Amino acid sequence: MKVAVYGFGNQTYYRDVLKVSENLGGEPPYGGSRMALEFAKAGHEVFLADPRMDTIKPEFKQKLLDAGVKLTTDDVEAAEGADVAVLFTPFRSGLTVKIAEKIIPHLGKDAVIATTCTMPVLVLETSVRNVLFMEDREDVGFSTLHPAAIPGTPQHTHYFIATNELLEEEIVKPHQIEKLKKLAEDTGKEAYLIPAELISPIGDMGVVATASAAISALEYYAISKSVLKTTKAMTEFQLAQAFQVVSSIIAKYGIEGLVKFLNAEALKKSLKSMLFDEKVQKVAFAAMNSLENVSDIEEIVGSLEDMASKFEPEEKTFLSAPSPMLISYMEELAGEDVTRGVVREALKKLYHGENN
Amino acid sequence: MKVAVYGFGNQTYYRDVLKVSENLGGEPPYGGSRMALEFAKAGHEVFLADPRMDTIKPEFKQKLLDAGVKLTTDDVEAAEGADVAVLFTPFRSGLTVKIAEKIIPHLGKDAVIATTCTMPVLVLETSVRNVLFMEDREDVGFSTLHPAAIPGTPQHTHYFIATNELLEEEIVKPHQIEKLKKLAEDTGKEAYLIPAELISPIGDMGVVATASAAISALEYYAISKSVLKTTKAMTEFQLAQAFQVVSSIIAKYGIEGLVKFLNAEALKKSLKSMLFDEKVQKVAFAAMNSLENVSDIEEIVGSLEDMASKFEPEEKTFLSAPSPMLISYMEELAGEDVTRGVVREALKKLYHGENN
Repeated sequence: MKVAVYGFGNQTYYRDVLKVSENLGGEPPYGGSRMALEFAKAGHEVFLADPRMDTIKPEFKQKLLDAGVKLTTDDVEAAEGADVAVLFTPFRSGLTVKIAEKIIPHLGKDAVIATTCTMPVLVLETSVRNVLFMEDREDVGFSTLHPAAIPGTPQHTHYFIATNELLEEEIVKPHQIEKLKKLAEDTGKEAYLIPAELISPIGDMGVVATASAAISALEYYAISKSVLKTTKAMTEFQLAQAFQVVSSIIAKYGIEGLVKFLNAEALKKSLKSMLFDEKVQKVAFAAMNSLENVSDIEEIVGSLEDMASKFEPEEKTFLSAPSPMLISYMEELAGEDVTRGVVREALKKLYHGENN
Repeated sequence: MKVAVYGFGNQTYYRDVLKVSENLGGEPPYGGSRMALEFAKAGHEVFLADPRMDTIKPEFKQKLLDAGVKLTTDDVEAAEGADVAVLFTPFRSGLTVKIAEKIIPHLGKDAVIATTCTMPVLVLETSVRNVLFMEDREDVGFSTLHPAAIPGTPQHTHYFIATNELLEEEIVKPHQIEKLKKLAEDTGKEAYLIPAELISPIGDMGVVATASAAISALEYYAISKSVLKTTKAMTEFQLAQAFQVVSSIIAKYGIEGLVKFLNAEALKKSLKSMLFDEKVQKVAFAAMNSLENVSDIEEIVGSLEDMASKFEPEEKTFLSAPSPMLISYMEELAGEDVTRGVVREALKKLYHGENN
């Protein structure tokens, strides 16, 4: 396959900020360049494009050249006829969208654009939809080759590939998913097929929150069966409400709002009556431990009390309204097409942080 | 004050299921009857209404009578001229709404109806709004005397009282909140004033999930500052998205959907790269520990793999669309009044478990 990888990976960030070699192991270069290296070693024709190629250490470039990777600063050259384009481009979404728009006309027929950890695939797909139409390139599919780890570290044993499951409109065709799967497996990684909307919550850094929430849900479900003997519907309501409220507060009011509205003292008092089984409720006990030793977090983020006292919400909102139910009402009100557009815009708005 | 308490509290559940005396301490009767007892001891005129009063142990009734509580099976008798009505009525929401509708015409002027742990105050307020209008009783306010613990246990040192903060439309007046605060403090409890929408997530059993999510958010924010050096906006996006997705999956597809879509193996692989500091990331490390020892939960809920393989989603939905942004679009589309109604209906629909 012809593969175009965009973005070398910020080696300074890996070395000086994350201290990857010491903390996680492996050796540089990490990131997009490592993915390119591995694809080339697996026998594919690989281009690696980065506008700042001249700032890259010569020894890293040599490693790539030795493996047969073609280095370029020209995004279009890399894209020409490619089967797969992998975007390991910067987090700032504007840049990634621009690169995608530029390369789309040049990709091979039925190519697939795969985002990684730097941008949710649905945000990208929505952002470039007009270009696909204008350029008559609706053959191009969208999915991910999400490493869900830093490529080049021993933790990187897998790729998450986005599927259409749960989506109303398909973004990728089966043969495009097969290409990505082959690419992953050719490098000796395990390929996980995951619904597109879940790639980012499971694969990105926020997985710490996704996993904690999901496990706390399972723990509570277990306790509701073994101790509380409450109905499953009641348990599910409480869980959906809890996460909806925490999500809405953060989306609308940020971390400061969370600290202000979820009064730590009140949480602690209430949580105390709900700890029954340390073996089953590992996460809930850890949350209590954290609440009782909140200075461990305050040493880094500063006093929570100060944060709460300084925060004043600008606008009111409804915090506990569940999205899936809102969406079904919106469909009744405005039809499916409008709703789909609104949902996409809402996601983009959140992603671009326009509400912070 | 004249106080009417509805619902004695299910003593069999406290004794045989939760084993409250052994596990948490204190002595029966627990629940609504204990609240009534404490209000009476604090010098208030208290009625306790329960349709099944004849099934209550004579010694419990005697305790209440000795404290001056008036026992009745007649909801209206208890309500007549009351300043405060406390609903410690069953979880099944239909019943609580019916009691509220029945008593509203009989309450004293400017009375306040306080829900407890059995029903979210906003669901009740929405459900009886027509009756308030028809009976010309819009003087009646709605708030909570949420014990956030089992009344009668040593853990019950506090009441959560719902405020209008963050609500678009007020549900309670300042002097009504003062009444509830006085009632709480007269019994020696601490009164926490909390925005109405947060009472249920903080006070109900699901607090295990709320606290776990909130703490994992703070932990991630700390790590994003100390280790990852990512922007606050990016951190907040990831957090809002993570909890939105977990909430939406549970609201739409239940626990089985959660188990199916949040692939435990994928979560584990991804989480492994995000554990940096055991002292700061207590909840995230506990989540990993739980993922690695998932049999502790499976012993109670059964095999997660079986659960996932059996589940087939009926309908697709958008999982990661953030509620606050959806709501602001809905306001543009349909106006504020429609939106307010839709949000309320969405919440009721979730509460009644019609989507499970």
